Amino acid sequence: MINVEIASIGDEILRGMTINGNAAFLGRELNSLGYRVLRHTVFPDDPETIRLGLKECLSRSSFVIATGGLGPTLDDLTLQAALPLFSEKPLPLKNTLGTAPGLFGNGLLLLPGIPREMERMFLEEALPLLQKRFPLEKNAVFRRCTLCLLRELEVDPFLRELQKPDLEIGIYPAYGTLQITLRGAQSAVGDATCAIQERFPTFFIGEGRIEEAIHREMIARKKTVALAESCTGGAIAARLVSVPGASLFFLGSIVAYANGWKEHFLNVRHDTLKSNGVVSCETAIEMVEGLFEESDADYAIAVSGILGPVAHRLEKPAGTVCIALAKRGEKIDAGFVDVSTDRAVGIELSVHTALGALWRRLVHNTPTFS
Amino acid sequence: MINVEIASIGDEILRGMTINGNAAFLGRELNSLGYRVLRHTVFPDDPETIRLGLKECLSRSSFVIATGGLGPTLDDLTLQAALPLFSEKPLPLKNTLGTAPGLFGNGLLLLPGIPREMERMFLEEALPLLQKRFPLEKNAVFRRCTLCLLRELEVDPFLRELQKPDLEIGIYPAYGTLQITLRGAQSAVGDATCAIQERFPTFFIGEGRIEEAIHREMIARKKTVALAESCTGGAIAARLVSVPGASLFFLGSIVAYANGWKEHFLNVRHDTLKSNGVVSCETAIEMVEGLFEESDADYAIAVSGILGPVAHRLEKPAGTVCIALAKRGEKIDAGFVDVSTDRAVGIELSVHTALGALWRRLVHNTPTFS
Repeated sequence: MINVEIASIGDEILRGMTINGNAAFLGRELNSLGYRVLRHTVFPDDPETIRLGLKECLSRSSFVIATGGLGPTLDDLTLQAALPLFSEKPLPLKNTLGTAPGLFGNGLLLLPGIPREMERMFLEEALPLLQKRFPLEKNAVFRRCTLCLLRELEVDPFLRELQKPDLEIGIYPAYGTLQITLRGAQSAVGDATCAIQERFPTFFIGEGRIEEAIHREMIARKKTVALAESCTGGAIAARLVSVPGASLFFLGSIVAYANGWKEHFLNVRHDTLKSNGVVSCETAIEMVEGLFEESDADYAIAVSGILGPVAHRLEKPAGTVCIALAKRGEKIDAGFVDVSTDRAVGIELSVHTALGALWRRLVHNTPTFS
Repeated sequence: MINVEIASIGDEILRGMTINGNAAFLGRELNSLGYRVLRHTVFPDDPETIRLGLKECLSRSSFVIATGGLGPTLDDLTLQAALPLFSEKPLPLKNTLGTAPGLFGNGLLLLPGIPREMERMFLEEALPLLQKRFPLEKNAVFRRCTLCLLRELEVDPFLRELQKPDLEIGIYPAYGTLQITLRGAQSAVGDATCAIQERFPTFFIGEGRIEEAIHREMIARKKTVALAESCTGGAIAARLVSVPGASLFFLGSIVAYANGWKEHFLNVRHDTLKSNGVVSCETAIEMVEGLFEESDADYAIAVSGILGPVAHRLEKPAGTVCIALAKRGEKIDAGFVDVSTDRAVGIELSVHTALGALWRRLVHNTPTFS
């Protein structure tokens, strides 16, 4: 294995003003190529600490990638700190999206801190140099797959059964979906993937994010989908739109946050809201019916709920979310989901539950709630 | 200053499957209290590496907070690795949201890796113990403020003028907004904040995120807002809804991704779409007019654009976004924004531009585009 470390430079990361997405991006890319990411470290904007820290990283690993601190402003100090560490003349790397160039030399790669500049420079300029200087043996493969609507403890015992010496398995819950990683010989990884898919057939999304899988299947089946969102406030739509080309299957979302909007745009009856409440299967079902009336979508999903921290509408406790879903002309599947946790997590859980239910309906014609 | 380090444990972070939001949360909390965050480190799921790594952190700092690897599954190894490092018997910390308890002992705090469990345990259980064991002197204050619609190079020269020995200034661009941090004596921080506000009055948001500031001002002025989103796909709505209590001013968003939806729900004329194009000021203006016709909103914003990587509709280049905005009964302010970068960044830039323009219209009655 070739060991690599990622160093991020900047007080703004240490102080939590910026989440370290650069390290995540680099870790993902390096790991999927087969490099072993040994450590991430974040250093402050202090030249001596940066220099000593990078030296320590270099002593442990074959190469070190440092991001940040290459720009023109008062707190950009990486260049002066790192220059003495190059024993050979480093190669400048072109920055096609910004001004600060990168540097590549013996085991040390300096990249800008702005994510899109860093990503572009890494993929286009640095990676070919890295792969040439540190070529990989081609025997192990890495695969990750996503499962929807299952909890870690529902899947972990089965993964333990699959364990064997030449296979490394990881399981990572991500707000209502599970990421499973497999690394080992091609055949071992292939066998384990098949076994997982056979054990959880309708929950198995495969590689990539759930919105990418839905995108692919919607287009392959020439189907369209429309949304009606209340408590998720556009978050499901934003997820579908994050994948380029979404206009091929995604019509839109009526984010009906005010109750009047549910009546006006989605034809929900005032009586239904009054007698069953806004967060009820009856309301969610009428929102789905409204979408079918007002658009030509093949599939429709509605989400209505009360998120925390406090239930402003007192009809149901905070964390109660109702999801309804149907294919045009077929029975509407509707039910409650408990997302009684913090607000942002509750939204993520609602989004993943809705998308998981859509996946099962679209690909396996299976209901989730009834 | 009391030095603290944050250690995160887990192959999933090294491999970039999880972004290190825990370190960001802890960094933010510790920094705003006045602790000095010296380093973040991510270690792999290997007991010996964890033990040696934490020992090294402890040798450098007054205390070390480690997150992750306390759970029951096969890759949870922190407890066995860290237990020998406690010279006194550690105190167990209650986990009110999950199963794995935390541990607090001489300079070392172990927290679970699941963000909401970690956050709750840190704030409610660990922080009082930390503050008791490592009390802070009360002389320096820390403040951060947000500016909208300005670029780093438009603000950096002015910040250099404000520099003085007892004041630490940072500037961090965040996709169309700028975060400025100030640390120093109360009076120095107060003076600098006022100077920044006086120099950029209509762009100055103050403390907190822009959606929190808009939330506060909307409610204080008893106004409501409605959105019509095309390329942002619900992302502006999701941002407003992320703040609890948004139903007090946010009516909803018509995410009209398909052109037919712009006509059907927002009364955009077919002719306008045909002769001016979907991404045009004319279309965005009619979307705003449609929102005023179909709802009783006081403010309306519409966003229509083409994001990359490829312009599926060939009328305009990818990265062209049109935003229109008005207060009911007043002239509609509309114009183009160039977000020709990657898709996710383009969406963020569009969201921040729309929210920045709303802020200026709401609080300063100032147009942004015309």
